[in-house]
Amino acid sequence: MVPVVSFVGRSNSGKTTLIVKVIAELKKRGYRVGVIKHDAHGFEIDHEGKDSWKHKKAGASTVSLSSAEKFAVIKDVDSEWPPERIIAAYLSDVDIVVAEGFKTSPFPKIEVIRKENSLKPVCANDKRLIALATDAGLSAKVPVFDLNGFKKITSFIIKEIIKKHTAREISLVVDGEPVLLKPFIENLIKDGVTGMLRSLKGCAGATEIELKIRPKKKSAKKPA
Amino acid sequence: MVPVVSFVGRSNSGKTTLIVKVIAELKKRGYRVGVIKHDAHGFEIDHEGKDSWKHKKAGASTVSLSSAEKFAVIKDVDSEWPPERIIAAYLSDVDIVVAEGFKTSPFPKIEVIRKENSLKPVCANDKRLIALATDAGLSAKVPVFDLNGFKKITSFIIKEIIKKHTAREISLVVDGEPVLLKPFIENLIKDGVTGMLRSLKGCAGATEIELKIRPKKKSAKKPA
Repeated sequence: MVPVVSFVGRSNSGKTTLIVKVIAELKKRGYRVGVIKHDAHGFEIDHEGKDSWKHKKAGASTVSLSSAEKFAVIKDVDSEWPPERIIAAYLSDVDIVVAEGFKTSPFPKIEVIRKENSLKPVCANDKRLIALATDAGLSAKVPVFDLNGFKKITSFIIKEIIKKHTAREISLVVDGEPVLLKPFIENLIKDGVTGMLRSLKGCAGATEIELKIRPKKKSAKKPA
Repeated sequence: MVPVVSFVGRSNSGKTTLIVKVIAELKKRGYRVGVIKHDAHGFEIDHEGKDSWKHKKAGASTVSLSSAEKFAVIKDVDSEWPPERIIAAYLSDVDIVVAEGFKTSPFPKIEVIRKENSLKPVCANDKRLIALATDAGLSAKVPVFDLNGFKKITSFIIKEIIKKHTAREISLVVDGEPVLLKPFIENLIKDGVTGMLRSLKGCAGATEIELKIRPKKKSAKKPA
C-alpha cells in the first residue's frame, strides 16, 4: 500500500484548512497526492438533475462518468469499507495519501487542535500519533507544529512518512480485507503470477498487473 | 467482465430519459445495475466549496470520500481510460453495466433515434448494433422498439445480454489494457493463484481475491 498520513481532530478544529495547504505544498514539491475523507454524516456529491444523479436515483448501485481529463465513480456499500480497502483499490497510484478523519484507523496521525474550538484531543493515547498541529501552545511527547506551519508539517510528512515508506510491489485484498505480505512471500507471488502470465498474448512485457478472482455465484443471476 | 449494453445516439435523442427508465426496471426485476457515461465535454461533479472540491483544487490527483452508505472517487487521468478498464476495475460487482455513449466501443449497442431531433443514426453500420429505440417508425435489420417501450427493451436486454453472458471468474488488466482469457487459461490462473495464497494467514477460505502488482519505480520518489 502507498504511505498514508491521517489528520485527526475534533470537528471545526481546522483540519481541512491545514490539509488543503499541505496538499498544495506536497504537490509543489513534486509528489502525487491522493486524499480520502471520512464523512460520518454521509455526503452528497454530484448535482441534482445531472445525468449521473438521475442514474443513481433510478437505482444504479454504482455510477461512473468518464472524460479525457478525469473519471468519477460513486458506489453504494452495505457498510463502510475500511479506508485501507479503498486506498488499495482506488488510490494506489499516488506517492502519498492524505486522510481526513479515520481516528480509529492504523495510519500514522497528526492531531489538529485549535484553541478557540476545543483543547481536548481525540487521539492523545494513540500510539500512531506522530505530531500535533496547534495554536494552543501545548506540549506533547510528539513534535508540536504551529497550526499554520504547513511547510514544516509537509517537510515532516516527507521525512517521516514518505521517505521511510518501503514501497510494496504487491497489494492483495482478500474478501475485502487487505493482506499484509512478508517480502519473501511478496516476491514469491509476484514471480509466480508474472511468470504464469508471461506467455499470454499481450502480457509478455507486463509491468502493471491487476487481477481479480471472483467465483461464480448462482444467485447473481435472478430470473426476470 | 460483467455484461455491458451501451445506449448510443445523437445528443438530445433521449438516451438519458430512456436509460433512467431501463435502470429502474432492471432494478425492479432484481438486477444490480452499474452505469458508465461518456462525457466528451468533460464534467463537473462535486460541489464548489465542499472539502473534496477543495482537496482537488489544491492539487490532489485523486480525491475520495467514504461513509457508511457509499463512497466516491474522482481521479485525474492523462488520457481517457477505455471504458472496459473502468468497468473491470470499478464496476465488476454488478449484474449489468448500462453505458451511455462510447459509440466506438466494442459493446453491444442500442441506438436511440427521436424524430424531432435527428433521423441520422450514429451506429447504423456497427456490427454490434443489436436494436433501435425510436418514435420515427423506422425499419432496420435489428429489432426496433418504441422509444417509450422501456419494459420491452429491459426484457430484451435481459434475454440477449444478461442471460447469454458467460460469467467470467477472472478479470485481468495488464498495463491498463483488459486481457481476455480462454476458459482453460482462466482456470489455470485461478487455480494457480488461489493455490499459492491458500496457505497464507487470512487467505485459507478466500473467495474474492484482488491482486495488484506494480513494480517499484525509482522516479516515484522525488527529493523534497
